[in-house]
Amino acid sequence: MSAGPAVERVDGHVALPTGRKVSIVGAGSVGVAIGVSLLAKNIADPLVLIDVDGNKALGEVQDMQHSSAFLQTQQIIGGNDYSLTEGSQICIVTAGARQKPGQSRTDMLEANIKIMKHIITELVKYSPDAIIIIVSNPVDVLTYAAWKISGLPLNQIFGSGTHLDSSRFQYFIGKLSGFPVHLIKAQILGEHGASCAPIWSGVSVAGHPIEKFGNLFTEENKKFVFEQVLQSVPELLRLKGYTSTAVGFAVADQVESILFNKSKAIPVSTLVKGFYGIEEDVFLSLPCLLGNSGISTVLPPDLNEHEKHLFKASADNMFKYQQEIDDFINK
Amino acid sequence: MSAGPAVERVDGHVALPTGRKVSIVGAGSVGVAIGVSLLAKNIADPLVLIDVDGNKALGEVQDMQHSSAFLQTQQIIGGNDYSLTEGSQICIVTAGARQKPGQSRTDMLEANIKIMKHIITELVKYSPDAIIIIVSNPVDVLTYAAWKISGLPLNQIFGSGTHLDSSRFQYFIGKLSGFPVHLIKAQILGEHGASCAPIWSGVSVAGHPIEKFGNLFTEENKKFVFEQVLQSVPELLRLKGYTSTAVGFAVADQVESILFNKSKAIPVSTLVKGFYGIEEDVFLSLPCLLGNSGISTVLPPDLNEHEKHLFKASADNMFKYQQEIDDFINK
Amino acid sequence: MSAGPAVERVDGHVALPTGRKVSIVGAGSVGVAIGVSLLAKNIADPLVLIDVDGNKALGEVQDMQHSSAFLQTQQIIGGNDYSLTEGSQICIVTAGARQKPGQSRTDMLEANIKIMKHIITELVKYSPDAIIIIVSNPVDVLTYAAWKISGLPLNQIFGSGTHLDSSRFQYFIGKLSGFPVHLIKAQILGEHGASCAPIWSGVSVAGHPIEKFGNLFTEENKKFVFEQVLQSVPELLRLKGYTSTAVGFAVADQVESILFNKSKAIPVSTLVKGFYGIEEDVFLSLPCLLGNSGISTVLPPDLNEHEKHLFKASADNMFKYQQEIDDFINK
Amino acid sequence: MSAGPAVERVDGHVALPTGRKVSIVGAGSVGVAIGVSLLAKNIADPLVLIDVDGNKALGEVQDMQHSSAFLQTQQIIGGNDYSLTEGSQICIVTAGARQKPGQSRTDMLEANIKIMKHIITELVKYSPDAIIIIVSNPVDVLTYAAWKISGLPLNQIFGSGTHLDSSRFQYFIGKLSGFPVHLIKAQILGEHGASCAPIWSGVSVAGHPIEKFGNLFTEENKKFVFEQVLQSVPELLRLKGYTSTAVGFAVADQVESILFNKSKAIPVSTLVKGFYGIEEDVFLSLPCLLGNSGISTVLPPDLNEHEKHLFKASADNMFKYQQEIDDFINK
Repeated sequence: MSAGPAVERVDGHVALPTGRKVSIVGAGSVGVAIGVSLLAKNIADPLVLIDVDGNKALGEVQDMQHSSAFLQTQQIIGGNDYSLTEGSQICIVTAGARQKPGQSRTDMLEANIKIMKHIITELVKYSPDAIIIIVSNPVDVLTYAAWKISGLPLNQIFGSGTHLDSSRFQYFIGKLSGFPVHLIKAQILGEHGASCAPIWSGVSVAGHPIEKFGNLFTEENKKFVFEQVLQSVPELLRLKGYTSTAVGFAVADQVESILFNKSKAIPVSTLVKGFYGIEEDVFLSLPCLLGNSGISTVLPPDLNEHEKHLFKASADNMFKYQQEIDDFINK
Repeated sequence: MSAGPAVERVDGHVALPTGRKVSIVGAGSVGVAIGVSLLAKNIADPLVLIDVDGNKALGEVQDMQHSSAFLQTQQIIGGNDYSLTEGSQICIVTAGARQKPGQSRTDMLEANIKIMKHIITELVKYSPDAIIIIVSNPVDVLTYAAWKISGLPLNQIFGSGTHLDSSRFQYFIGKLSGFPVHLIKAQILGEHGASCAPIWSGVSVAGHPIEKFGNLFTEENKKFVFEQVLQSVPELLRLKGYTSTAVGFAVADQVESILFNKSKAIPVSTLVKGFYGIEEDVFLSLPCLLGNSGISTVLPPDLNEHEKHLFKASADNMFKYQQEIDDFINK
Repeated sequence: MSAGPAVERVDGHVALPTGRKVSIVGAGSVGVAIGVSLLAKNIADPLVLIDVDGNKALGEVQDMQHSSAFLQTQQIIGGNDYSLTEGSQICIVTAGARQKPGQSRTDMLEANIKIMKHIITELVKYSPDAIIIIVSNPVDVLTYAAWKISGLPLNQIFGSGTHLDSSRFQYFIGKLSGFPVHLIKAQILGEHGASCAPIWSGVSVAGHPIEKFGNLFTEENKKFVFEQVLQSVPELLRLKGYTSTAVGFAVADQVESILFNKSKAIPVSTLVKGFYGIEEDVFLSLPCLLGNSGISTVLPPDLNEHEKHLFKASADNMFKYQQEIDDFINK
Repeated sequence: MSAGPAVERVDGHVALPTGRKVSIVGAGSVGVAIGVSLLAKNIADPLVLIDVDGNKALGEVQDMQHSSAFLQTQQIIGGNDYSLTEGSQICIVTAGARQKPGQSRTDMLEANIKIMKHIITELVKYSPDAIIIIVSNPVDVLTYAAWKISGLPLNQIFGSGTHLDSSRFQYFIGKLSGFPVHLIKAQILGEHGASCAPIWSGVSVAGHPIEKFGNLFTEENKKFVFEQVLQSVPELLRLKGYTSTAVGFAVADQVESILFNKSKAIPVSTLVKGFYGIEEDVFLSLPCLLGNSGISTVLPPDLNEHEKHLFKASADNMFKYQQEIDDFINK
């Protein structure tokens, strides 16, 4: 503040770090939804939005800046220059290539790894201590790749994982049972994708295990609920063309737990070697405590035999998938 | 809650009104941004989203429902059926027709009035006591039309007006002066559009009138700031293709002031007959206190001669415009 | 607003009900702590504080009014006149007589019933639809008395019960286990007093049953934790002379669940006839969903044999106690 | 977390600093009110409460700990050992000696300086970078003393000053005008005490200067309002015996502006040498921006001649007062 009737008591132009700087890579619908959720919660400051298309990032940033009078976030910046992310506490990666018509799944994956190498290298260069959250899909395999690329310890990098699937699971159980969502405890673990595992053994409704609800949680009803979860994304693609709102709130929940050291227990994608007999370097979602060091603790729940089998199958599936990509990473 | 280990103390299936039901008409980028802001602030419940394209509304609603685990809003519903809006406290209209290539401005206006007639009639039928906020553009003239169509008293219907322009004005003054936005008091009044009036005489920065800031607020700098406000929308259209985030937060601010009876002073579009010598039924933005009866009070500020002239010109402009539409309204 | 540059759009002096009026009877340390917690959470408006000592009530009210610039509550009033409570959504009773030196427990109880008769009669006269929360001790028996006196249905009147004991239980389990309190699910049910029952069978830590924690939850450690809960009040009396802060936050949590219809599951004191083989009109704490109709649902958990025995003993104890007071109520 | 089904990803027992540690010295009604306000706002963590009477501090801390289930603050500690305050971001001093019967004002002051020397020395030893807020009375002179004792730069130490007086001023202007308090801008500057100066020239109501309100702000009414402000404390002493609630919320507002770098403009006690022709080292309240470096900027308003005179008189008065104490400081 150089002008007017103000007397400085400190060198006003040197802003102290706020300890709450968050950078988002990717200004598409997911990145923007995360940014808007963070602004609405007033938890990140500065907020940085980076996109390879600097104009798109700038447009979204300006729309956010125009909201400043309704927010408490004082600095919102963006563009295509990674130096803006310098000194971030958290970096969130939402960017990625979509499968093009005629492109093989493998080619698409190779393209994504290439993008990830660039992004992660830049982020780590400017914010070596930041916690990195991978949101880009396929999230488990890209988080594995990002971990390899970054060389970061396991607490410092994870994938947004099945947090969103779990919130959908809770929503549909709430709908079935008639109880409000906040009274439903339920998790989906394993892959963020088709092989994910609904952990029915741990579901509780208003503090009660589902067995207490007589003939409500029949196999048929359970199958119906899980099917709704699996159909969520295809259904959203059909109805609105993309997904944004819920993933925005889910990732903002993870960011809040980290920035304010809340130690919420959230299912995110992390290395699962050593759990349930898995011996390979595979990333899948397990409940983790998220605090200001990132993942402080992994909390693997007791699974019944069927659930263990599902989780293990998820891991095997993922491992096969990942082997393809080690080459791409090392290229 | 029909099942399980629960003993009802009231007829559980009869939900009492929450007193915070809000319905949004239009599931485009603006309507969705408003909805997401309301969800993030946890102030509306139930939240209803209506669109002529029921699938689009449903898609957005589902994405919001999947966020339930991160929110406190218990009921989010939508579709193309206005009966869902029954008993709303607030109805927000964002729907409207865009000017088609080759379509005259008058034809576009006629199309919009026709849409507005349908929407307002439906909303008033199901929620005769609701406060109605018009966001669709051109907002001043459409609010006038909606007022005529609705037959509602002046406290109960208004347009979102220059609240957003004012927040942009504050942002750019903040940028010029180096002070945080919340220390800037500044308003744009009159039309939400090209003839809007920046009220420099009332601007204060950190509690000081701008005259105290020496050579900072030169005519050149003031012109530059206002030009940035005027260029905001064209710039956003160029960079990201549409506007959404800031209008979402602005309207959510209006909703909050109403639902929680906060009596915030906010510039919204209301009948300005009787102010500054205006003698016609024209809608323009003036600061109004928004509480649980809608607009409880209008607070017309003292304007200098130049500002009065700008405001009056805004009114004349609007009046000419409106005359065209009385025919459409009465059709 | 009768003066100045303001133009009314509604009859400004007729305030619409906010739907969030809360009255507290008793301006002692507990009543004030509840009031301050409600102010800090910005959930009640108007807030009314009643005390037989009108000056004490007024002093506390003025100290709260002086805080208005930091709050969003617009009306804070009080004194010794119950007509101020008219039209409350919630009434909270914290007043009561302490045992005087030489006074028998029975005499003290008689004195309290007499006070309760006066308070409840006045509250119901001015707010027949209000939900009444009894906080005065002995809370279970006084809630029973207040229910009898009021003639209200069971959803509309309850005691603050073991909500506070449960929060202490969670705190000490957190301390034992090293996990943050929000990861501890644990409840104390039955009497708010010496015969309360810690429900170890339902305790979970970070989503895991305590059996998973190996040798942490030994009988000795469990006994130590529960002993700390029981010693909390004597310890506070010794160290600071009274209790206030935690009961303030606990009751504010109940109020929030009601006013915003959150359906939180909270252990409060309600009629337990019909549960666990109890056949008498006895009030004890069980988890209840609190929403805008008060207690919408009771959620009696599965108890193991030992816990059932404790709960039943609590009920027997309470029933004996209550028999004394039916005479006082009918006097 | 040493036990159970948890796998550490970081050395779990080494807590990273949260950047939000706040220590309060003095567990009397003021210190506790500040602590409770900070807890309710969930902004400080850890929260430390120190008192020369370790038992009193411990009792208050335990009552706060029992509230943990309703809060987000994870660590609440206290006692009489200053090492607990180590690494605080903010230290708040509320302790002090009251004037004893028969004790002269000078003796009381000497006693307080002695206490302040001990407290400040301990605080600076354990948290050399902390921002220190003096709340103890007489606040201006004790802040001067604490500044001298501490050797800290001016941004890093200030007194809570007339922030509370200003909030009372706003409240009573609101009551006079019928407008809600948040629409009243008004400040009291100078001494926190009898010689304070109401800055009527800067008062605005709903954005309008008071001149616009015709015959509402007569000299008589203005005198009446200011008299109510001056009588607030004597009135509270008469009615409830002490003051607590409002000072708690006021100081919490200052803490929030610092911890979250909000740059609110708040009147606090700082060195006023150089303003309005004052040439001595005197501490009085002027509006200051409070951010994460403490006072970043002083914003002296334009005063009319009468107000300047009042402010200068306040300074003269204070200077005479302070001269007595330099000896005590250097003792």
